[in-house]
Amino acid sequence: MIFVFTAEIDAEAIARFEAEVRRAGGEPQRLASGPDGRRAIECRGALPRDVVAALAKQTGVAFVLESSVAYPKVAAAAPTVRVGKALFGGPEIVLIAGPCAVESEAQLEACARAASAAGATVLRGGAFKPRTSPYSFQGSGETAVGLLRAVADRHGLAVVTEVLSPDAVPLVAEHADMLQVGSRNMQNFALLRAVGQSTRPVLLKRGMSATLEEWLLAAEYIANAGNERIVLCERGVRHFDPAARNLLDLAAVPLIRARTALPIIVDPSHGVGVRSAIPAMALAAAAAGADGVMLECHPDPGAAKSDGFQALLPEQLIELGERIRAVAACVRT
Amino acid sequence: MIFVFTAEIDAEAIARFEAEVRRAGGEPQRLASGPDGRRAIECRGALPRDVVAALAKQTGVAFVLESSVAYPKVAAAAPTVRVGKALFGGPEIVLIAGPCAVESEAQLEACARAASAAGATVLRGGAFKPRTSPYSFQGSGETAVGLLRAVADRHGLAVVTEVLSPDAVPLVAEHADMLQVGSRNMQNFALLRAVGQSTRPVLLKRGMSATLEEWLLAAEYIANAGNERIVLCERGVRHFDPAARNLLDLAAVPLIRARTALPIIVDPSHGVGVRSAIPAMALAAAAAGADGVMLECHPDPGAAKSDGFQALLPEQLIELGERIRAVAACVRT
Amino acid sequence: MIFVFTAEIDAEAIARFEAEVRRAGGEPQRLASGPDGRRAIECRGALPRDVVAALAKQTGVAFVLESSVAYPKVAAAAPTVRVGKALFGGPEIVLIAGPCAVESEAQLEACARAASAAGATVLRGGAFKPRTSPYSFQGSGETAVGLLRAVADRHGLAVVTEVLSPDAVPLVAEHADMLQVGSRNMQNFALLRAVGQSTRPVLLKRGMSATLEEWLLAAEYIANAGNERIVLCERGVRHFDPAARNLLDLAAVPLIRARTALPIIVDPSHGVGVRSAIPAMALAAAAAGADGVMLECHPDPGAAKSDGFQALLPEQLIELGERIRAVAACVRT
Amino acid sequence: MIFVFTAEIDAEAIARFEAEVRRAGGEPQRLASGPDGRRAIECRGALPRDVVAALAKQTGVAFVLESSVAYPKVAAAAPTVRVGKALFGGPEIVLIAGPCAVESEAQLEACARAASAAGATVLRGGAFKPRTSPYSFQGSGETAVGLLRAVADRHGLAVVTEVLSPDAVPLVAEHADMLQVGSRNMQNFALLRAVGQSTRPVLLKRGMSATLEEWLLAAEYIANAGNERIVLCERGVRHFDPAARNLLDLAAVPLIRARTALPIIVDPSHGVGVRSAIPAMALAAAAAGADGVMLECHPDPGAAKSDGFQALLPEQLIELGERIRAVAACVRT
Repeated sequence: MIFVFTAEIDAEAIARFEAEVRRAGGEPQRLASGPDGRRAIECRGALPRDVVAALAKQTGVAFVLESSVAYPKVAAAAPTVRVGKALFGGPEIVLIAGPCAVESEAQLEACARAASAAGATVLRGGAFKPRTSPYSFQGSGETAVGLLRAVADRHGLAVVTEVLSPDAVPLVAEHADMLQVGSRNMQNFALLRAVGQSTRPVLLKRGMSATLEEWLLAAEYIANAGNERIVLCERGVRHFDPAARNLLDLAAVPLIRARTALPIIVDPSHGVGVRSAIPAMALAAAAAGADGVMLECHPDPGAAKSDGFQALLPEQLIELGERIRAVAACVRT
Repeated sequence: MIFVFTAEIDAEAIARFEAEVRRAGGEPQRLASGPDGRRAIECRGALPRDVVAALAKQTGVAFVLESSVAYPKVAAAAPTVRVGKALFGGPEIVLIAGPCAVESEAQLEACARAASAAGATVLRGGAFKPRTSPYSFQGSGETAVGLLRAVADRHGLAVVTEVLSPDAVPLVAEHADMLQVGSRNMQNFALLRAVGQSTRPVLLKRGMSATLEEWLLAAEYIANAGNERIVLCERGVRHFDPAARNLLDLAAVPLIRARTALPIIVDPSHGVGVRSAIPAMALAAAAAGADGVMLECHPDPGAAKSDGFQALLPEQLIELGERIRAVAACVRT
Repeated sequence: MIFVFTAEIDAEAIARFEAEVRRAGGEPQRLASGPDGRRAIECRGALPRDVVAALAKQTGVAFVLESSVAYPKVAAAAPTVRVGKALFGGPEIVLIAGPCAVESEAQLEACARAASAAGATVLRGGAFKPRTSPYSFQGSGETAVGLLRAVADRHGLAVVTEVLSPDAVPLVAEHADMLQVGSRNMQNFALLRAVGQSTRPVLLKRGMSATLEEWLLAAEYIANAGNERIVLCERGVRHFDPAARNLLDLAAVPLIRARTALPIIVDPSHGVGVRSAIPAMALAAAAAGADGVMLECHPDPGAAKSDGFQALLPEQLIELGERIRAVAACVRT
Repeated sequence: MIFVFTAEIDAEAIARFEAEVRRAGGEPQRLASGPDGRRAIECRGALPRDVVAALAKQTGVAFVLESSVAYPKVAAAAPTVRVGKALFGGPEIVLIAGPCAVESEAQLEACARAASAAGATVLRGGAFKPRTSPYSFQGSGETAVGLLRAVADRHGLAVVTEVLSPDAVPLVAEHADMLQVGSRNMQNFALLRAVGQSTRPVLLKRGMSATLEEWLLAAEYIANAGNERIVLCERGVRHFDPAARNLLDLAAVPLIRARTALPIIVDPSHGVGVRSAIPAMALAAAAAGADGVMLECHPDPGAAKSDGFQALLPEQLIELGERIRAVAACVRT
């Protein structure tokens, strides 16, 4: 946003103006004009609408130049999304839990029991798995989706599971309460349009190195196709340090809040990928103001078909659920 | 770490072994041996010492290969560092606050009053400033250091300030209680050796794109020069999204804990660089288990000579201090 | 790869062994064994097969541990891929040129004429465009594919164009000679399988922050579905500097060569995204040993519907084509 | 740079204006004004001075707003730097070669002989080494500097070597013809000022994750201290793929050219860190228009005290030198 001043304005008035911008959270930067000595100030950072309006009316301001909003539907979306008993964006933090991949009814039942005991209201579980190698376990597909539904119903949980291609949307939407679009597909626009035409709410994970703007534009694809019930999920970005699987970007929580009312949750399991560091990051997510936390668990991580190294044991999940709620209660007032 | 097995071991025993490794937080990966059919498993992730010892004794394990520790002094360092009334690594979270740069006695006095009211025990303030441009304000040097001492003494606060070159260490150490090594100097080895020969504790900020290993090796330079009173400070790493100044890597807190007992604190002011997002990240740092939080404040951010856009107002600092302690109390039990 | 030695080997023999590894291009790193004093050396870097075999037979080497190859089909693929008159991986460097998006027959005709004059043998042009915003021009679809075919035929050129979803593969494969999978879809596994079942060769672009291993595994999905006629295309990775659109990773050319015989080409237009820097990077790609260069052009970049800022003018393309061949002739002997 | 138009301008005139901007290499982006309907266009990319002047005079343009140049001395610096027989920025590409670290007279003599035979005019060699670990070989210091001088003189070569701290500048400047500031010290401002006060030309390596702007501002520190004889050296940036040590950013060559006349060279040895990929990247650097290439060599890489895995053998260096000149001759016309 650029404020252009009349030629009459003096240095002191400029300085006062800049101070006001800073107080409102903006970062002013002076631009030099051409031969007529006119001045202008570019303001970075998100200035509230009413502050801009007030600044624009000050003596000495000739006019204001601003970019139009790139994602109008997402910027104006409603702040809550209901999925079964879970209300994303509501007063309570939502817990989603379950295994990386659905492997058997016994495994899923153990996870659902732990999830329930931990206070989770949504059961997650991979049925169609996007795997880096074609030789890795690719999920149990339709069978797994059916199992998720049956087991979740026994425990009064809602179901979220990933959908990998447009033609699989109807099948997954029939059984699941919420459709997950994974990181690798954040810019699979055919898929975004397909889930946008579904009546199911969508969990949109951030791409592996997506900017916040790209992520919100991906959400705009879904909204523009007709579905504004979107929950964003931060899951870590690519980085340079082999010490962790991804770099969990918790600042995305407050920064997204300044751009849209859509709920945002955090997935520390993929976000760090080191089991011992996951509880600390789940608590940090709650303290950062996340509307929910998604956690992977497994009754026997050592026997897991995928990502066992980042799965919590049932008893760890239950203890952590309680701690997450305690931190959330402490900051959500 | 690599476990090499005898040729007699069977597939089931290997699978059981891998399950144990996973349960202990490691990530096993099979390595195929040469023509004699011998097998080995590489274990990534930090396995506890006693687990390794137990695994090494199992039937079928021929021997264990492991890298030696790269930073022995840091790995064995004591878990607490005292600076005035502040005990880093103790039961309470430490708050450091103050302006980006010392500008005047009035400004510093206002900051110290706010810091004190916020529960801070250490006053920060730049005297010698590392600035990207040679034409930016470079700090008030010795005058500023003297002011810091005088104002801190009036409020019973300790002083931490940055030192930029080996020859300035004696001067800064004379007035300050703690020497800060900034991000840009994390691998300025002459400086690391100089502060390592000082008797003052050192606050070592993480480099702009340093791995955890490089950071710990930088600390090892200081320890190896004779000074083991080191506090690490996460302050965000370089990244690709213009939405924030840096990417605050809060997972560094639990990941560093697994490698050294040295205290670790977080600087969300530089870590995000967007004022409105700083409180959320300060709370998240506390929830992640940080031993302290460092915050920039200014009585009039709009008039600040540097980084005003990320400075909190005194009243914001005071309110945030209380919330940080509440979150810390909730997780530090 | 890890060489494990018998307990009898002495320090000198170890040092000689390491020297040989280094001479062969590997990077040896010593691993300490357990209480029996046995030693081992991990060798990073790609040692040629015959060197490993020779090293394994040396006195003192007990056995060798190595990871199995993650992408066997790609590792064993044939080194050339023919598309019309173009032979990727052959003695001559291949030039692909055309507009970012097909806009009109006149625009395409002008590009095809320039491409032909520049020595290109393949015409590129977006028909189905993956765009970050749902409100940006999304391409002219089927009409554009038909135009590409017609115009290319007039000039004796082959056609490559992007396909965005599995259900569009038959349509695109009917008109185009080569199917492009774009960066955003590098891990759209449903799409990889679909093009893997096509009889058309595939141009697989590297994902925005994909490692070389992930890229090769994406190629393995295509190969594993039955199609080994794959050409890899480096197009820059995400990075932190706003000075360029992407960071063109030309080292991918020699590093991929060490892992597979599949041809690899470079797209400097997206790789830098700054028109004035594109010619230098096209020449650098040729010097690095790329099997081809893909360039965007437009008769009137100022009127382009997408990415006009990185399109070359026809006369620039023609001049650059000649220079690329001169550099390639200089290094491909 | 922002062009602001009078309220009378019509849509067609705006479109024509944008087309001109694009033709000149800029990227126009429309900004919406306030209630008076005034329009403005932001132009990214580096428009030549004369184009801006011409555009500013067009009918309908009210005035132009632009940022002032951040590094005036560097922007106006002379395009050539002479060091002994080497003329950086002159018609011929300069070759710098030598070992990572000076180890012995015999080793250095072998390197200097190879460097000479390869057509190099400058001998490099580490005397004071910045090492990540305090336990790694730190260089032979003063002895090594003396050896460099003596051996270089025998072969008619100039000497460049790294200086790590301000107090070592006089000693190094006494023996070396050119002072190197390493990546880790790119923002060690005390050191930049110290080499800026020296009469020796400076080789300024890019920091591990420095933007081009930060790099040029670091150069401005040196220039502002009085020394404008600066050669920039691209050596790769930090990245996410373990396949290479760094990501060599060759686009820095043309992008830096658009910002300053200072010579820029490339160090592919550190830039890739994989011996087998270095020749390809050295040739690519020459093709990208680099004013020089810096290469590490060693008579016995397997016995090198540091970075042996990226050192070329003497015979490889000699062959590569010839090929580099051939490529440079092909593009430097």
